[in-house]
Amino acid sequence: MKTFIAVDVGGTKIRVAVYGEEGITPLQQTRVSTRGVKGNALDRLMETIQALWPAADTVSAIGIAAPGPIDPHLGILYASPNVPGWVNLPLASILHDRFKVPVHLGNDANLAGLAEWRYGAGQGHHDLLYLTVSTGIGGGVISSDRLLLGQCGLAAELGHVVILPDGPLCGCGKRGHLEALASGTAIARYVAEELDRGRSSSLSGNRSPSAHDIGKAAAEGDRLAIEAYNQAWRYLGIGIASFLHTFNPSIVILGGGVSQSGPQFFSVMQEEVRNNVMTPAYLKNLTITYAALKDDAGLLGALALARSGGN
Amino acid sequence: MKTFIAVDVGGTKIRVAVYGEEGITPLQQTRVSTRGVKGNALDRLMETIQALWPAADTVSAIGIAAPGPIDPHLGILYASPNVPGWVNLPLASILHDRFKVPVHLGNDANLAGLAEWRYGAGQGHHDLLYLTVSTGIGGGVISSDRLLLGQCGLAAELGHVVILPDGPLCGCGKRGHLEALASGTAIARYVAEELDRGRSSSLSGNRSPSAHDIGKAAAEGDRLAIEAYNQAWRYLGIGIASFLHTFNPSIVILGGGVSQSGPQFFSVMQEEVRNNVMTPAYLKNLTITYAALKDDAGLLGALALARSGGN
Repeated sequence: MKTFIAVDVGGTKIRVAVYGEEGITPLQQTRVSTRGVKGNALDRLMETIQALWPAADTVSAIGIAAPGPIDPHLGILYASPNVPGWVNLPLASILHDRFKVPVHLGNDANLAGLAEWRYGAGQGHHDLLYLTVSTGIGGGVISSDRLLLGQCGLAAELGHVVILPDGPLCGCGKRGHLEALASGTAIARYVAEELDRGRSSSLSGNRSPSAHDIGKAAAEGDRLAIEAYNQAWRYLGIGIASFLHTFNPSIVILGGGVSQSGPQFFSVMQEEVRNNVMTPAYLKNLTITYAALKDDAGLLGALALARSGGN
Repeated sequence: MKTFIAVDVGGTKIRVAVYGEEGITPLQQTRVSTRGVKGNALDRLMETIQALWPAADTVSAIGIAAPGPIDPHLGILYASPNVPGWVNLPLASILHDRFKVPVHLGNDANLAGLAEWRYGAGQGHHDLLYLTVSTGIGGGVISSDRLLLGQCGLAAELGHVVILPDGPLCGCGKRGHLEALASGTAIARYVAEELDRGRSSSLSGNRSPSAHDIGKAAAEGDRLAIEAYNQAWRYLGIGIASFLHTFNPSIVILGGGVSQSGPQFFSVMQEEVRNNVMTPAYLKNLTITYAALKDDAGLLGALALARSGGN
């Protein structure tokens, strides 16, 4: 049997799984920590792949999903927010030299979009927009049945479109990007600032509540928490309207923790999309929905990449 | 010899030209008025094509560039800002029935981008962003050697991304779109408003100066005129930074009258791109330049579409 190995380099762990030619149930899987363990993360990754290597079957390709700036054409990981030593790492060629099979590397948000298209909420669509809204905001776009990559594979960094010139500082160091207005980080910063100003809230005892804490407070009716989520979803709606003009997709899929914050916020976003779209033609045959694959999106995107030979 | 017929439906005229298999010098060309002439514009178009039809050669295909909302997949022109009667017009199938050759229809800004890629400033690039900045702002994107279209061919309406929520009213009826901030219309409106407020300017005698008038005043050192162009180019730079994150192109090509307003404004745009881009990686191997094909861009885009069989 032909098999495929998928790798997801996540925040605290690297997941590795083996799949057959079809389906999304792994034949085998494991995870290794990326931090606080002795030894080199690359060595651990290679040992883990070796340990899972099917004795009786052929491995056709390895696919890898990684965060941070990478070049999927060259298979180079320029920096990894999670694995300190991985800078300018030619991961694809290192693994190819070691395992003698094709190795394909992709940005995790791009590959989550690819996974939703192949195996998740976007199956059957030709033009798809995927947004993950959690600590940061990432994007993945399928256009006419192909992943949008750009000259160096840096395309669809949709968390970094400018939504409010001179707006709040973004994690990337620039101002007013979508991520600085609608991510979990943006929600947490807004609430912390309002608490500092003396706003009363059920969160007042907590000096720096997380987006998750704020989500729980919103569900319990806290006005500041609701305001923070409303504002984030409003900016998300403005961003999505721009992305409809940009890509004219037939489906928009929302993943990530912040996207799970409840139907009342989803409605706020939908209203803002309608308010900002130039013609209802962009809403025709358009579905806006939640991601189906959750935590497996990166791993399954790496699988899709491996199965498609890197395209 | 195989020939191709290209049609450009413009503001005041329809241009029709016949080309061979290679090159961009027409074998024959003509133009017909779209307004103020008796009879039906569609009949005039068909008569013009008939008059130019090569007697001795085969016509392989007809390509048409048209403004306004169209569906290139279906060959339908939903509305034409320039030809009042053309609403929900199945132009491709009407011309196919009449001339018995394949007919391909495309949005004029998309096709101008295609033309710059095939025959103009963007030759040899695989990922290209074209923006036309004149009365309005339109976009055309080539991604991995393909024109970005979207599910109904409405993609790359980049003049209608939101740059300033609740900003000035756009021609489309929504607020704060790039076109409402950086087009010739936006420049003219800004100056008219400032003159109404009593600002002194060499333009004071003119109640509603055009972007062209304002450009001349700016070249002569008028402070209000320079301010208006600076502001437009600054917003254009913010938009381009977002588009770099979105598409990661290797070339950005600027066409349209407003883009010709001079190198000092081009520098303002470049500075704003640098100010808003998340990492210099997006500026690596990036060219930002002027369009090469000027007024012929739409016609040559229609030619490129005809020659490529609609892809």
